[in-house]
Amino acid sequence: MIETVNGNLCVDGVKVSDITEEFGTPCYIMSEKTIRENCRKYKNAIEKYYGGNGLPLFASKAFSCMEIYRIVASEGLGTDVVSGGELYTALKAGFDPKKIYFHGNAKTEKELIMAIESGVGHIVVDNIEELMLLDRLAGEKGKIANISFRIKPGVEAHTHDFVKTGQIDSKFGVALENGEAFEIIKTASELKNVKVVGAHCHIGSQIFDEDPFMLAAKVMLEFMAKVKNELSVEIKELNLGGGFGIRYVEGQNPKDYDEYMRKVSETVKSESAALGLEVPYIVVEPGRSIVGAAGITAYKVMSVKTIENIRTYVAIDGGMTDNPRYALYKSEYEACIANKADKPKDFKATVAGRCCESGDLIGENMMIQKPEAGDILVVFATGAYNYSMASNYNRVPRLPVVMITDGKPRIIVKRETYEDIIRNDI
Amino acid sequence: MIETVNGNLCVDGVKVSDITEEFGTPCYIMSEKTIRENCRKYKNAIEKYYGGNGLPLFASKAFSCMEIYRIVASEGLGTDVVSGGELYTALKAGFDPKKIYFHGNAKTEKELIMAIESGVGHIVVDNIEELMLLDRLAGEKGKIANISFRIKPGVEAHTHDFVKTGQIDSKFGVALENGEAFEIIKTASELKNVKVVGAHCHIGSQIFDEDPFMLAAKVMLEFMAKVKNELSVEIKELNLGGGFGIRYVEGQNPKDYDEYMRKVSETVKSESAALGLEVPYIVVEPGRSIVGAAGITAYKVMSVKTIENIRTYVAIDGGMTDNPRYALYKSEYEACIANKADKPKDFKATVAGRCCESGDLIGENMMIQKPEAGDILVVFATGAYNYSMASNYNRVPRLPVVMITDGKPRIIVKRETYEDIIRNDI
Repeated sequence: MIETVNGNLCVDGVKVSDITEEFGTPCYIMSEKTIRENCRKYKNAIEKYYGGNGLPLFASKAFSCMEIYRIVASEGLGTDVVSGGELYTALKAGFDPKKIYFHGNAKTEKELIMAIESGVGHIVVDNIEELMLLDRLAGEKGKIANISFRIKPGVEAHTHDFVKTGQIDSKFGVALENGEAFEIIKTASELKNVKVVGAHCHIGSQIFDEDPFMLAAKVMLEFMAKVKNELSVEIKELNLGGGFGIRYVEGQNPKDYDEYMRKVSETVKSESAALGLEVPYIVVEPGRSIVGAAGITAYKVMSVKTIENIRTYVAIDGGMTDNPRYALYKSEYEACIANKADKPKDFKATVAGRCCESGDLIGENMMIQKPEAGDILVVFATGAYNYSMASNYNRVPRLPVVMITDGKPRIIVKRETYEDIIRNDI
Repeated sequence: MIETVNGNLCVDGVKVSDITEEFGTPCYIMSEKTIRENCRKYKNAIEKYYGGNGLPLFASKAFSCMEIYRIVASEGLGTDVVSGGELYTALKAGFDPKKIYFHGNAKTEKELIMAIESGVGHIVVDNIEELMLLDRLAGEKGKIANISFRIKPGVEAHTHDFVKTGQIDSKFGVALENGEAFEIIKTASELKNVKVVGAHCHIGSQIFDEDPFMLAAKVMLEFMAKVKNELSVEIKELNLGGGFGIRYVEGQNPKDYDEYMRKVSETVKSESAALGLEVPYIVVEPGRSIVGAAGITAYKVMSVKTIENIRTYVAIDGGMTDNPRYALYKSEYEACIANKADKPKDFKATVAGRCCESGDLIGENMMIQKPEAGDILVVFATGAYNYSMASNYNRVPRLPVVMITDGKPRIIVKRETYEDIIRNDI
């Protein structure tokens, strides 16, 4: 819980200024309590609406480090990984490989071997070249790989251009509408070293509307019925992907996840019955909605530069290296001055990062308390796609992640040192 | 030199496919010869047009690692750094601190102390808070810091929105037109622990036009004359920044750097004479134009996905993690299939990266040779702002940098391992 107590912003009861004093700025701060609550919402909804016949996977691209895998595993979730690096991290954290799903549109041979050898539960196959490669590799290892297919259902969620993925014009997966998905499953059903277990779709990110999810479920079930009838291949698992929106700024009102799960379950059940299918095992892949609102970033204000009649730049000791989302997508965030959190937010600021690049901004026209050099500026809802997308541009070290657990801060990712940065330089 | 020999793309005579066989894909490949030639162009121009009264600085944000500092140092260049991380790297590489200029709009106290203690030649002061902090810190260390000021001359280069910096609406520096620059120099001239040595301007990046550079030089000299006349402060050094464009794609025709330096020198000399100033020590800050065209990136093609009547996605084993410039700015690149380099470029491809993100593209509608899985796809002119902006998004390890020196490849930055990636995870 992020709230103001006696004029100071606190995360689960710990003052942000105490955290920055102990761990320095800039730093990410996350609430373990919030992460666990979010995990339980999905877990409970699967129990309630599908009788436990399903599994939520934490989409680790949102935030991957060893401790997050331990937390979501202890809540009973699986995880999806999209690279050898995420898989390696999950395995090192002790994640049960059977509950790991391996995604990605360009998996390498080495990664597929790693996935086969470590016994990941599912490999979500993206394309025909990968299918043939995987069948060969699994054969060489004497294994049968459980596979799903990433399918473009042709459903398009209304969201930012960069994160539309359901439509046919996507680099991901195989399309339904041109028969590509049907053909690849037909091919797979004739291969010896793969077993078709599931079908997967993902219609976008940061979606607030339930309808596209229900439409996608319907389209996918119809496809599964067609595959059963025409190929005698029974797809037992339906993976509906992720994409559940969170609140970054005022006016964004995400649907209650339980309510979303209830509505989709009704569609799944009624459609399955109508099509003569057993209700499939249901998989969902929340990432942002597990960790996004659970995290904040705390910076130090370095200077306040007012340009008369134009704008005020508030320079901070971080920026696009720890949060590239404004530079990439013009993503909006809310912010505040942690040590003046009870003062009115009547100051309009362009929050500028420290990189030698004009586009290095955290946001424009952000309403915050009147800042001055030395203040702690907090940006909200940075738990997803911040640490995971961080860079060392300008050789700026990446930030530590401070997790608040039972009212106490602890480091779960250490701050990078200069020595780390030159480690691979010859 | 990058050329095709017997159907194979070569860098300084070494076949790209031999390099990828030895070092794996994806990888960056750079030509030391080209880097050194580019350094000499600037160095020679300073000799020729200013009688050696000046210094080109390599703008290390374009590509910072220990070996690049050794190379540019051996060519007699200085360097500019914008963070403690870049400064640390340069110092570890043995760079003469007197030839280091420390830039940045939000330098931290620790970084300023590091700069003072290591004896960097110049600190380019950005704002009033920083000036006062620096004066205090230098005093505490018993040092006098040589300083320049980053000045917005109000000159705007016609280039991408993100990289316009000369205009008054910029997070960088102090403005001329509202008296801010004059005031800060007045303040600085009264401080005890700083010495005003220079004035700096930077009008943008990837600029092809000479006129804005000449205009900026003129405006800066007029300002220096005003400061001399009204404050009796003699600014002996004029830093004209960087921003010299390179050729990324056909149709981009960068000016010859020697010709640019000649023209600007004429402006500097005639204006100095007209204003009664001695010709100042001239500093320029090329980054992209030193390393950009000297580097390529070699990827493996993982799949070729043709969507009828829409487009063909060519998936590679790298992407926005090693080159985020298309995702950030829609920057255009040229590419080819290294092992089919003599075949016609008659295939239109959208080159898609491996990240779990639709926006992870290297380019759209790129003309390449007909590709198939297993081919080596090369993207040109990736020597600048690729390695330096790389991330571990999706926990993808960062690529090695292979330098071709005297016709032989050698690793100057090692490939990251999975162990590197989890090194700071608790």
